[in-house]
Amino acid sequence: MALKKKPVTGMKDMLPKEMEIRDHVIQLIKETYKTYGFSSMETPCVEHIENLCSKQGGDNEKLIFKILKRGEKLKIEQAKEENDLVDGGLRYDLTVPLARYYANHANELPSPFKAMQIGNVWRADRPQKGRFRQFMQCDIDILGEQSNLAEIELILATTAMLGKLDLKNFTVCINDRNILKAMAAFSGFKEEDYDEVFIILDKMDKIGSEGVSAELEGLGYAKENVDTYLKLFDEISPDVEGIAYLREKLGSCLPKETADGMELIISSVEAAKEAEFRIKFDPTLVRGQSYYTGTIFEVTMDDFGGSVAGGGRYDKMIGKFTGQDTPACGFSIGFERIVMLLLEHGYEAPGNRARKAYLLEKKLTGEGMLKVLSLARADREAGFQVMIANMKKNKKFQKEQLESEGYTEIIECYSDSIGSL
Amino acid sequence: MALKKKPVTGMKDMLPKEMEIRDHVIQLIKETYKTYGFSSMETPCVEHIENLCSKQGGDNEKLIFKILKRGEKLKIEQAKEENDLVDGGLRYDLTVPLARYYANHANELPSPFKAMQIGNVWRADRPQKGRFRQFMQCDIDILGEQSNLAEIELILATTAMLGKLDLKNFTVCINDRNILKAMAAFSGFKEEDYDEVFIILDKMDKIGSEGVSAELEGLGYAKENVDTYLKLFDEISPDVEGIAYLREKLGSCLPKETADGMELIISSVEAAKEAEFRIKFDPTLVRGQSYYTGTIFEVTMDDFGGSVAGGGRYDKMIGKFTGQDTPACGFSIGFERIVMLLLEHGYEAPGNRARKAYLLEKKLTGEGMLKVLSLARADREAGFQVMIANMKKNKKFQKEQLESEGYTEIIECYSDSIGSL
Repeated sequence: MALKKKPVTGMKDMLPKEMEIRDHVIQLIKETYKTYGFSSMETPCVEHIENLCSKQGGDNEKLIFKILKRGEKLKIEQAKEENDLVDGGLRYDLTVPLARYYANHANELPSPFKAMQIGNVWRADRPQKGRFRQFMQCDIDILGEQSNLAEIELILATTAMLGKLDLKNFTVCINDRNILKAMAAFSGFKEEDYDEVFIILDKMDKIGSEGVSAELEGLGYAKENVDTYLKLFDEISPDVEGIAYLREKLGSCLPKETADGMELIISSVEAAKEAEFRIKFDPTLVRGQSYYTGTIFEVTMDDFGGSVAGGGRYDKMIGKFTGQDTPACGFSIGFERIVMLLLEHGYEAPGNRARKAYLLEKKLTGEGMLKVLSLARADREAGFQVMIANMKKNKKFQKEQLESEGYTEIIECYSDSIGSL
Repeated sequence: MALKKKPVTGMKDMLPKEMEIRDHVIQLIKETYKTYGFSSMETPCVEHIENLCSKQGGDNEKLIFKILKRGEKLKIEQAKEENDLVDGGLRYDLTVPLARYYANHANELPSPFKAMQIGNVWRADRPQKGRFRQFMQCDIDILGEQSNLAEIELILATTAMLGKLDLKNFTVCINDRNILKAMAAFSGFKEEDYDEVFIILDKMDKIGSEGVSAELEGLGYAKENVDTYLKLFDEISPDVEGIAYLREKLGSCLPKETADGMELIISSVEAAKEAEFRIKFDPTLVRGQSYYTGTIFEVTMDDFGGSVAGGGRYDKMIGKFTGQDTPACGFSIGFERIVMLLLEHGYEAPGNRARKAYLLEKKLTGEGMLKVLSLARADREAGFQVMIANMKKNKKFQKEQLESEGYTEIIECYSDSIGSL
């Protein structure tokens, strides 16, 4: 078989320039989240196929890279369908593996457990610009914390981190599945229709109130219900006032603890935030994943069409592994989008070392090389990034290249003058 | 299907305590290698199956986790063998993907290219203590550098890094495939037998000179040749003297540039090394991979039976992708072994932040919580690692747990005394 030079379809080789930014962002994320008491943890990239296909991943389950059984377990002749051939798959997110990890290790972990994960996930999505089949996710999750302290800390930590990357003009949008449900109930929709209604509501920012109205009526929902529903959205201000309005308007449809929680989260985040951003109550925020049970939130950025981070509360997932519900809430950053934004903005990772290069004349002796090595050693100990390279015939081009890589000091080393260095 | 709590066979969940050390070691590696002018780079974890099965990985090719084709490309009924079902696999090392990467991007990369890779690799090995099916490798490679400057820089960088981890009593063993060949040729072995002879020589540290002699004779090699061969090893001192001895003894069997190169590498590393270690010429060092073409080296540690790092020159691999040979030399650290050693030694990652915890009384009001959040914000900005948690019924146990996690300052926050904090 001929060797292939390109990476596999939809996946990406990372060049040094991009890696510099990626390494810097990862380090910044780890440092920032640590100050918030999150502990680094990791699961294997390969997960049991049963766990990946457990209906918690929604559409992502259609996109799994599956791993062939090995040895005697693989019986090709007898295989009828895909799942006869495979026993594992590459994880499509970090949340399902986290639930398994927590179920496996709860006794060894503090409670609540504040987890930080940075790792690749894989989805066999149709390749398109800026979307890759292997991409990095950075998640923080708080497991075992029922109170909204979890949401507050997750939002403060995530926004502090974004602020340290000099990202400005971003907004945290927040909503609660229970508010979505209360508004639908108040408007007269039936519980079995909620999911369909929310899928259409989710398009509000694209098709507007009239579009949503038309689609809902098109599906046969009563005009009266649709009108009541959409009128509610018109009258909600995007802050704690909005919550107060709904509290009064929806009455017993809206659980008191939901309204209290939203007010507490919004006011606490407003008061304690480290970075510059807006927090906005957004009753049209839906978020797709079916596993969310309470608050949901998202970071949108003016520079970027779409969200750069998202999360919410999923109090029922861990119980599927353990048989016992454990409150859980998480926030995931769109690492690739953020790196893309930084690259587009010409972001320079700060704190890069001063760079020095030694170019060695070809006939430099062993003695001469030792001299250079000992100079380089001292430079490195002093914190320099030092390149030692043999001088090329086209020295001018070589120096230009080194300069373009940030080597500001370039020292030519010749055998007859090495003593004077 | 029932959900599974354990990770997949042979792979490992990483608990926070181990992750703290892993994160620290990774950061130290990146920082150290950067001072030597290495650039971070990455390839996807999934590689073309053709590249993985190209006979460059030796026995590792039997251990590939293969990835099922997707969609219409998967034709289960027509499949006769494994490779009809798969189009990719998880990489089993970082070297084959590096060769592909370099072939794909040579025009965008400096020459020579000093690459640093830290990433997981996968091998479906029989699970055993301390060996996992997913493990991290840290490689540095210099591509496009023909001179032994490559070996010298690789050895200096790797040993500097090990020294910064307080690892002591380690030895760099070095040899050259051309010395192996010269000694075999001098002793009268035929070229087609070299590989078999070297496989047995490789057992010298386990079965001794007599064992090697017995095995070689057992395979039918002439006693005279075997005796000549083994006598050579007796007389070689493990340093530049040993090279000088071979230079004289082997005469034209040993290429002059091989002997010159070994002397230059050993004397330069001795003179310029940053860490405390021995460099030893070891004519019995073989290293399995068939792709090595020149120098080979390895780091052994008295604390640890076996090597913790290994590498060598492989000038012919990249040409298999590009059609044009490119000199290449690399050094790979056994990251998992090093982490295991550090864990066993009770190594504490230095530079951990001071840790402070606030415990919130249940009836603390929103006002009280804001106070705590603003105190925490100031602490975090001052560099503390801060945990905020709701006070549990068993406060004593909760505090003990926090102390065991390193929270030395624990502040209890009550609604009636919060003002005095």
